[in-house]
Amino acid sequence: MSSVCLSMEGGSAASTPAALPYYVAFSQLLGLTLVAMTGAWLGLYRGGIAWESDLQFNAHPLCMVIGLVFLQGDALLVYRVFRNEAKRTTKVLHGLLHVFALVIALVGLVAVFDYHRKKGYADLYSLHSWCGILVFGLYFVQWLVGFSFFLFPGAPFSLRSRYRPQHIFFGATIFLLSVGTALLGLKEALLFNLGDKYSAFEPEGVLANVLGLLLACFGGAVLYILTRADWKRPSQAEEQALSMDFKTLTEGDSPGSQ
Amino acid sequence: MSSVCLSMEGGSAASTPAALPYYVAFSQLLGLTLVAMTGAWLGLYRGGIAWESDLQFNAHPLCMVIGLVFLQGDALLVYRVFRNEAKRTTKVLHGLLHVFALVIALVGLVAVFDYHRKKGYADLYSLHSWCGILVFGLYFVQWLVGFSFFLFPGAPFSLRSRYRPQHIFFGATIFLLSVGTALLGLKEALLFNLGDKYSAFEPEGVLANVLGLLLACFGGAVLYILTRADWKRPSQAEEQALSMDFKTLTEGDSPGSQ
Repeated sequence: MSSVCLSMEGGSAASTPAALPYYVAFSQLLGLTLVAMTGAWLGLYRGGIAWESDLQFNAHPLCMVIGLVFLQGDALLVYRVFRNEAKRTTKVLHGLLHVFALVIALVGLVAVFDYHRKKGYADLYSLHSWCGILVFGLYFVQWLVGFSFFLFPGAPFSLRSRYRPQHIFFGATIFLLSVGTALLGLKEALLFNLGDKYSAFEPEGVLANVLGLLLACFGGAVLYILTRADWKRPSQAEEQALSMDFKTLTEGDSPGSQ
Repeated sequence: MSSVCLSMEGGSAASTPAALPYYVAFSQLLGLTLVAMTGAWLGLYRGGIAWESDLQFNAHPLCMVIGLVFLQGDALLVYRVFRNEAKRTTKVLHGLLHVFALVIALVGLVAVFDYHRKKGYADLYSLHSWCGILVFGLYFVQWLVGFSFFLFPGAPFSLRSRYRPQHIFFGATIFLLSVGTALLGLKEALLFNLGDKYSAFEPEGVLANVLGLLLACFGGAVLYILTRADWKRPSQAEEQALSMDFKTLTEGDSPGSQ
């Protein structure tokens, strides 16, 4: 049981849908504003960032927003933006962006665990921390499985094409769970730091609420670009890429299933 | 620029994919456990529910989980579950489930505003409340626009088919934002009620964390069933339904664009 999508483009398969660049530009504007506003929040209201002091905690939200939200989101958009480049180049860029995101997120994780250790705080008791560990673990597993199936030469075509939809679904889900976890963390920070002042509409609370809405909007914008059926990478480019992968496979020493 | 999906099913177009019923059953098990566990949390640790007392607040989380999470999620699954019924029947069921969800959510909103008023608490200062008002507003607008385009006879076919992908995308996004807002609310309740006891792994905190993970899992399960390409309603049934809609249109006095 399967379904085939035939693309009936007006122009050649190599053309870029007219509205796509504007949506991508808008998503990048949202993403960069998100990172800048996280920096502004930490700088203006939380004393800035330093590794060897109480300010070490502040490295956590900044790294997580840059790594697990902005870079992870952009890694998902690679196939929409680079529509006509060789599939292999696009794949490598997709994988590399995810590596950067993972490394930055790892620094963010080390920051919070190290800060908790120095302060003698308990670890992993909150819903934010449970979701965070879950999402980081899933992200790492997804990267490993994605690498073994799509970048490491040798996975049979049949396995690749059966795994591809799962990879896309879990990729989008892990990204959305990352956004949700960031929202939970922001909320936690606000309630810990502001307490009763939160309900008095303190400037920090309002700024952080706007930051939360921006997080949700960036997630929505990435999801929209990713799921629009007529913005998918053209099938002609996919087919060229498939035959190139096949060449790589047959020239290498991994027989695969072919 | 458009794309056409041809369904190449092994059996007749009327067949149900073999794994679909199990996934739907699993999603319902998750959803019902979610509602039951919300009730258990409120009953065991928050004193239960009553309208005319301090317990009025507790009506808010229960109504929101039943309305904006469980019923909204199930309304999205209607087209996957009722695959061969007349399109119009399925549409009416989809619209009705959303009406129930909206009404129950409205009761939940009245509960919290009424509780705040009686207690003299500030309204709409938190990220949870901002997201909540946004999601309720978007849900209401989505219902109104969906009703005018798809159920109210008279919308031209061309408009319907152009709006359909937007309706599906925003429907899924509003559902995911509802799940995210519920997570924020749960986190808020935990930090308000447990305070420092949260980090001591109090039973209430652990139960509520599990409830949060269940919320995320229910969202993920609904999204999976909704987005799996080979589980879409068969196109043959869609075409039959289209011609039935056309019959309704031409028999009625709304000319549409035909």
